[in-house]
Amino acid sequence: MEKLEQLRIEMHKHRIDALLVLTSDPHLSEYIPDFYKTREFLSSFDGSCGNLLITQTQAFLFTDGRYILQAQEQTKNTEFIVCHSPLGFIEWLQEAKIGRLGVDYQTLSISLLTKMQDVLVQTQIVDIDLIAPLWKKRPALPNNPIFEHSLEFACIDASQKISFIQEKLIAQNIEAHLLSSLEDIAYLTNLRGSDIEYNPLFLSYMLIAQKECILFVDSQKLNQALEAYLADHHIQIQPYQSVMNYIQKYNSLWLDPLKTTAYIFKSIDNTQVFLQENPSVLLKAIKNQDQIQHIKNAMKQDGVALCKFLFWFEGQKQSDELEVDKVLQNFRAQHPLYISDSFPTIAGFNANGAMPHYRATQESYLKIDSQGFLLLDSGAQYLNGTTDITRTIPFGHIKEEQKRDYTLVLKSHIAISSSIFPKGISMPYLDALARAPLWNEKLDYAHGTGHGVGYFLNVHEAPPVLSVFSTNSHIVEEGMIHSIEPALYRPKQWGVRLENLVVVQKVAQNEYGEFLGFEALTLCPFEKECILLELLNPKEIEWINQYHQKVYEELSVLLPTPIAKWLKQKTSPLSK
Amino acid sequence: MEKLEQLRIEMHKHRIDALLVLTSDPHLSEYIPDFYKTREFLSSFDGSCGNLLITQTQAFLFTDGRYILQAQEQTKNTEFIVCHSPLGFIEWLQEAKIGRLGVDYQTLSISLLTKMQDVLVQTQIVDIDLIAPLWKKRPALPNNPIFEHSLEFACIDASQKISFIQEKLIAQNIEAHLLSSLEDIAYLTNLRGSDIEYNPLFLSYMLIAQKECILFVDSQKLNQALEAYLADHHIQIQPYQSVMNYIQKYNSLWLDPLKTTAYIFKSIDNTQVFLQENPSVLLKAIKNQDQIQHIKNAMKQDGVALCKFLFWFEGQKQSDELEVDKVLQNFRAQHPLYISDSFPTIAGFNANGAMPHYRATQESYLKIDSQGFLLLDSGAQYLNGTTDITRTIPFGHIKEEQKRDYTLVLKSHIAISSSIFPKGISMPYLDALARAPLWNEKLDYAHGTGHGVGYFLNVHEAPPVLSVFSTNSHIVEEGMIHSIEPALYRPKQWGVRLENLVVVQKVAQNEYGEFLGFEALTLCPFEKECILLELLNPKEIEWINQYHQKVYEELSVLLPTPIAKWLKQKTSPLSK
Repeated sequence: MEKLEQLRIEMHKHRIDALLVLTSDPHLSEYIPDFYKTREFLSSFDGSCGNLLITQTQAFLFTDGRYILQAQEQTKNTEFIVCHSPLGFIEWLQEAKIGRLGVDYQTLSISLLTKMQDVLVQTQIVDIDLIAPLWKKRPALPNNPIFEHSLEFACIDASQKISFIQEKLIAQNIEAHLLSSLEDIAYLTNLRGSDIEYNPLFLSYMLIAQKECILFVDSQKLNQALEAYLADHHIQIQPYQSVMNYIQKYNSLWLDPLKTTAYIFKSIDNTQVFLQENPSVLLKAIKNQDQIQHIKNAMKQDGVALCKFLFWFEGQKQSDELEVDKVLQNFRAQHPLYISDSFPTIAGFNANGAMPHYRATQESYLKIDSQGFLLLDSGAQYLNGTTDITRTIPFGHIKEEQKRDYTLVLKSHIAISSSIFPKGISMPYLDALARAPLWNEKLDYAHGTGHGVGYFLNVHEAPPVLSVFSTNSHIVEEGMIHSIEPALYRPKQWGVRLENLVVVQKVAQNEYGEFLGFEALTLCPFEKECILLELLNPKEIEWINQYHQKVYEELSVLLPTPIAKWLKQKTSPLSK
Repeated sequence: MEKLEQLRIEMHKHRIDALLVLTSDPHLSEYIPDFYKTREFLSSFDGSCGNLLITQTQAFLFTDGRYILQAQEQTKNTEFIVCHSPLGFIEWLQEAKIGRLGVDYQTLSISLLTKMQDVLVQTQIVDIDLIAPLWKKRPALPNNPIFEHSLEFACIDASQKISFIQEKLIAQNIEAHLLSSLEDIAYLTNLRGSDIEYNPLFLSYMLIAQKECILFVDSQKLNQALEAYLADHHIQIQPYQSVMNYIQKYNSLWLDPLKTTAYIFKSIDNTQVFLQENPSVLLKAIKNQDQIQHIKNAMKQDGVALCKFLFWFEGQKQSDELEVDKVLQNFRAQHPLYISDSFPTIAGFNANGAMPHYRATQESYLKIDSQGFLLLDSGAQYLNGTTDITRTIPFGHIKEEQKRDYTLVLKSHIAISSSIFPKGISMPYLDALARAPLWNEKLDYAHGTGHGVGYFLNVHEAPPVLSVFSTNSHIVEEGMIHSIEPALYRPKQWGVRLENLVVVQKVAQNEYGEFLGFEALTLCPFEKECILLELLNPKEIEWINQYHQKVYEELSVLLPTPIAKWLKQKTSPLSK
């Protein structure tokens, strides 16, 4: 029997009028273990973002602008209708006045439950998991070993970070803080794992009380050295599943409503709950000078691999999307600090580049053997930093209209990269600066301009969030690291995206305030042959030349002579 | 005995550790009747925005960037400490962990109460009015006559507007909606009053149920014709104070949490309350084509008065801040549709212009008899529209640094005025476009760039809100009217602010979305002699020339010949 058919029988049995299937897990991660990929199991769509809503007669997939084309393609043999906006189901439910809505509270954040309850006043929201009984060949939960992120790279001792949280608890007179979010636990403990592809995380919960600290983790993941490490840092170990028995013990508990499930929230009685952002969110977002120095080194490593790749690619008469991924990965993996890629490489040639999060597969990939653009978005996890870069690389003779698109996206990139703004601004409010050069031409892109990046952690880490679509209210602060990646997609033709990572730096202080700006961290040339000089003003040309000069200075000494020579030519100054 | 001393005795008596005095009234108006000016009574500060927080040992005044200098000046003989941000008291209270906080719930919105309860978890918030017993010579509540805003100008019949609300009630299955906000009641009934200076409003509540409609208003304000008008539109009349007896009668009630007091909210038992934005907010913000046409006519009337004023001013060997206000008002009042000014004129010469909301008084005003800038921000209520314009007018020989400031503010004005953006953006996200030319020079201004403007209604009407300081989430929509008023203040030297009203217009529709832009409504020249051409790019010069051409074409035919000739010269094209 077909999955949806079976599911609808179960829904009918439990009087569920609509079932919501969220892309999420008990840790509310963006990237989740295969065990939790219920949305992909039901719909076949395998992008990183998408939620399903299923009624007896209809089935919807809600995803964001990056994935619309891909989702339509992957669900074309299903009854799912692809809709814009991951949370678009709320509006749909508001209109439809559904009686009973089912959702697995293990995958639902407190804040999303609250939002739905506020808006769906006529709907009863029910905690139910109808997928588990259906999914016969479900993958197991991961159980990979944990390792220490050595202090040399982590730069701040775990005990110091934990004390910071404990001071917050004491100041606010709250007994304990429960953390469910894996990136915060990895950050605070200086431990890493590999339970989730591309993210160096391990499944766990963490309870920090005013005078004790417990890590809930499967003990199979730990060796003796790690047990000693944890003991040294006064971190107790308890089984992963036992967390629910512990949280009841405190009279007051701090939970982050965005990073804690409704399942946990609803399981707590007789405890005063303080719903506030996890204090490690900001601690982790603001990198210190030592960490920034490590990251700058990681950017050099990454830049070397990228230059080797670009040099190789320019020499090819033909290639394909899978090969470029493999070759680039090999160059990166040559560095001793390389751990893995930081996300699945997006290598999209021409029409595939117009799908912002396209992924080539063995079954479906394009040859690169005619003129056009290769959109290449990739990154790596190094012990000394996480990288994420997009370049749009010409193959063969590039047409004027392609050059125009490249230049407009570059103008966007420069506009936001060179912007100066006062301290106190929330990052989403800056996105218009990036988009204005495209908006002026009545063009746009349906995704954010930038996301925060972890330090040997998740490649997507909020804050910062540089997006008109976001309501993240954190102000931009010195030491935050994030991407700048404006784009332009010509459906079925080509895509252009140009991405650097940047760090927020202080540029001035005067009677009008403290002013901040961005310093580019990524080191990799843009494509001069794709730039239409007549579309640039002198300041934009100067920005490109200065950036290229820095790329050459930092990388040339690390490259073999022929590639250093090639880079000299790639980064020579533009002038009108 | 001194007021604060008396107040503290009362606070002690009622065990109030801190007393919050908000600038507000039972209708949560921005501009309030004298009866409710408790903050001014206690602190002497008479700006339009400011809240007091008083403990046994300290007294604070929280206001916004426009008013910091003025507030410091006006409170210098009191113990009040002026603090930035009108809601800054919340942070202060969070730190101070006050036990019992007193506030008059008749002046507190539901949403502010909720916010304070969420944040001040250790504080008990108490509804108490300690000012009334202290204020012996308190002004009476206003009781001015109501008049009809004729359909010729209102353009939409009151019954049609009320039906719109009733349809919303039926669709959501809510029995009734209570409106406390005077501007919404005036808008829906097509009635106006003069209970609040500069705002054509009348004190009232309105209850719209699915099949009935009641206006709670003092019957002395109505004549026979108006009673007939209300009867024709099926609007019942009940005494102003009786509203509290009626709201209990419904099983479900729609309240706008931003526009309804905590006093009303707390008075309701056994009624299901739906906290949602008043549906007339958006209805009123989006002006239709007929209304826009009237407003364009009002702009011509206003432009004629402004040109007459500027022509007169240029001929003066000396003047003063009070005289320019009087002269400009007289020119405006010559038009038969003129009702009043729309706010107290800000005429600030040099150092006074550096105080964004300065107001000259008989006791304190500057002569205009040396070189410098007159910052003149003024507007009028006409039956066919509300105007609001700022020009910075040179007197004598203008220095290079003054011209530079003028040109930078003009660049900001042009940047946002000429911007194009897709539908779906919340207006606060556009403010960075206005500020970027100043931010680039490490300059800024501590107030919003623009506010919505009513139609023969409040000169401040949200949405739209064009401000990085705002979290208003309404998207920009065709037909919204608002100001664009970037500025630069050189404390103790001069201020520059350049303000036009604009209307949002559709400029394109393509595969990337619907694109919107702004059309300038205000008709009044900028000062060419204050512009440094070398700071402008060709597109900016073209914008100024096109705007000036429009000003000349629209106004010259309405002006006496000498002034039309003068205008021709004022608006002749700039070129490099």
